[in-house]
Amino acid sequence: MVQIHNPLLDKQSDDHFHHLGITKSAIDIPKMYGDIKFICMGGSMGRIKNYAKIFAKEMGISMSDNLSTTDRYSMYKTGQVLWVNHGIGSSSSSIVIVELIKLLYYAKAKDVIAIRMGTAGGIGVTSGTLILTSGALNGELLEEYVQYIMGEKISRPAIFDAEVYQQLYKIAVQLKLPVQIGKTLSSEDFYEGGQARLDGAFCEYTEQQKLAFLNRLHNLGVRNIEMESLCFAALFNRGNIRAAVVCVALLDRLKGDQVLLKSDDLSEFETRVFKVVNIYIKQQLKL
Amino acid sequence: MVQIHNPLLDKQSDDHFHHLGITKSAIDIPKMYGDIKFICMGGSMGRIKNYAKIFAKEMGISMSDNLSTTDRYSMYKTGQVLWVNHGIGSSSSSIVIVELIKLLYYAKAKDVIAIRMGTAGGIGVTSGTLILTSGALNGELLEEYVQYIMGEKISRPAIFDAEVYQQLYKIAVQLKLPVQIGKTLSSEDFYEGGQARLDGAFCEYTEQQKLAFLNRLHNLGVRNIEMESLCFAALFNRGNIRAAVVCVALLDRLKGDQVLLKSDDLSEFETRVFKVVNIYIKQQLKL
Repeated sequence: MVQIHNPLLDKQSDDHFHHLGITKSAIDIPKMYGDIKFICMGGSMGRIKNYAKIFAKEMGISMSDNLSTTDRYSMYKTGQVLWVNHGIGSSSSSIVIVELIKLLYYAKAKDVIAIRMGTAGGIGVTSGTLILTSGALNGELLEEYVQYIMGEKISRPAIFDAEVYQQLYKIAVQLKLPVQIGKTLSSEDFYEGGQARLDGAFCEYTEQQKLAFLNRLHNLGVRNIEMESLCFAALFNRGNIRAAVVCVALLDRLKGDQVLLKSDDLSEFETRVFKVVNIYIKQQLKL
Repeated sequence: MVQIHNPLLDKQSDDHFHHLGITKSAIDIPKMYGDIKFICMGGSMGRIKNYAKIFAKEMGISMSDNLSTTDRYSMYKTGQVLWVNHGIGSSSSSIVIVELIKLLYYAKAKDVIAIRMGTAGGIGVTSGTLILTSGALNGELLEEYVQYIMGEKISRPAIFDAEVYQQLYKIAVQLKLPVQIGKTLSSEDFYEGGQARLDGAFCEYTEQQKLAFLNRLHNLGVRNIEMESLCFAALFNRGNIRAAVVCVALLDRLKGDQVLLKSDDLSEFETRVFKVVNIYIKQQLKL
C-alpha cells in the first residue's frame, strides 16, 4: 500500500492539493485513482503529454484530460498509468511527488512503481545512450537526499529498485539500444553547480578543472548528470513506492557542454526512453 | 552594463540557450533585447502571460509572441519590459536567470532591474499583504545562496536593492494596500523542508514545534516563506542587475497551512503585486 508518515493528515477535515488543484472531498479519489500501478514522470509538460498520447493510442485505451487544474503541473491518466510532469529540479519535483503520494494514499493504491523518464548529460557515454540509475549523488557527492527541516539538516536514503532497472536494462538490450546501468549526479544547478559547465554566465573554473571533476565522477561510477533522481527516489521510497530512473544522454560532457542535436535526433532519443518503459509497463500489466 | 563572469564564453563560436531555445547567431540579440530595462518574473507561466497582456493593453503597446521556443519557460516582451516565468524553486529559477543574463549581456543592455512577483506564505501578516524582501534566508537560516560547485560548498550574498523596494513600498502605501518590508525564508521544499507544513505526506514534527519554528523566524524578521528569492537576487547581483522581490501572502502560516482562498480572492491578491510593479515601471520609464 502507498504510505504517508503524517499522523495529522487524517485528522484534517478536508485536503486541498495546492499545486494539482484537487480537493479531496470534491472527487471520489479511490474510484478515480485506486487502480494506478505506474506513475511516469518527466520534466517537460509537452513530453509527458506526448508519451501519454502514444501510450493510449498503442493500447487502444482512452486518455484523460489534464487532471491538474493549475498551470504548475500536468497530469494525465491512461488506464492504470498516471503521466505527470515534475518541472526542473528537486524543489519543483518534491512538491508534486508529495501531492501524488497523498493522492495515491487516499486512493488506497497498492504495488505502485514510479519511473522518471528524463534527459541528461552523459559522462563517457555517447549521445543517445540510455542510463539506468543505480544510485544518485548530491552536490556534495554523497548518496543522500538532504532537506533542511526547521533549520536542521536531515539526510535521507534514495533507493533505486534493482528489479525494475534490471528489467528495463534487459528490454533496452533486446531493442538493441545503447544502455548502461550507472550512478547519477543529481545537481541543483544546470550551469555551475554540480555540472561545471563552461557555457553559462558564470564560470570561475578552467576547462582542465571541469574535466578533472567529470573524470572524478566517472571514477565514482557516475554516468550521467541530471537534477531530480535523488529527490524522486527518496520521496517515493518514503511513500512505499518503488522508484526507477531512465534517462537518455543528450551529449557526452567529456566532449563539450552545448547540446547541438537536431530536432529529429532529440525527438528520436526521447522516444528511446519511452520505448523501453512502454514495453516494461505492458509486460508488468500483462497486456 | 549587464555582466557575465566567464572568460570562455566569448571564445565560443556560437551559443545555444538550452532552455529558452534561442541560438545567438540566428537572431540579432542587441536589436531585439538591447532596450530592456526591466525583467519581471514569477513562477507560473499563466500568471506572467496575463501580467504581460494587461501591461501591454494599459500602455497601448504590442506584446510579443512567446519568445521561448521550448516548453520549459515562457518569455514575452512588451516594449522595454521582459516577462519571464521561472518555474518553482531555485534550481528551475537558476537556469532561466543564467540564460537571461547571457541574453542581456549579448544584447549590451544596461541599467536593468529584475523584479520577482510571487505568492508566498505570510508569517504574522494577514492574507493579501504585500511583502517586500529586504534579505533572504536559506534552509540553514543563513543569508547566503549556497551552490555546490565541483563538490565544494560555495556561498554567495544576495542583495535586494533598497532603493527599488522602498519605492515599491511607497506605491503600495499610496494605493492603500497592506504592505510590509521584511525578510524572506527561501526554502527548498514546499511541505517539510523550511516550511514545516502539517499537510504534506510526511510530517515528523508536532504542531507546537512548527509554531515554535515560525515564531523563531518571525523574531529573525522573517515575514514570508517562498522558494526563489535567494537564488533570484544572488544570480542577478552577479550579472550587475538590481533585484527586488514583491510577494503577496496567500495565508498567515501562524494560523494554518492550507490555502483556502476563493478563486476571485486569489486573483485579486495576485493583481495587487501587478498594480504596484506596473506603477513603478511606468514611473521609472517616465511613461
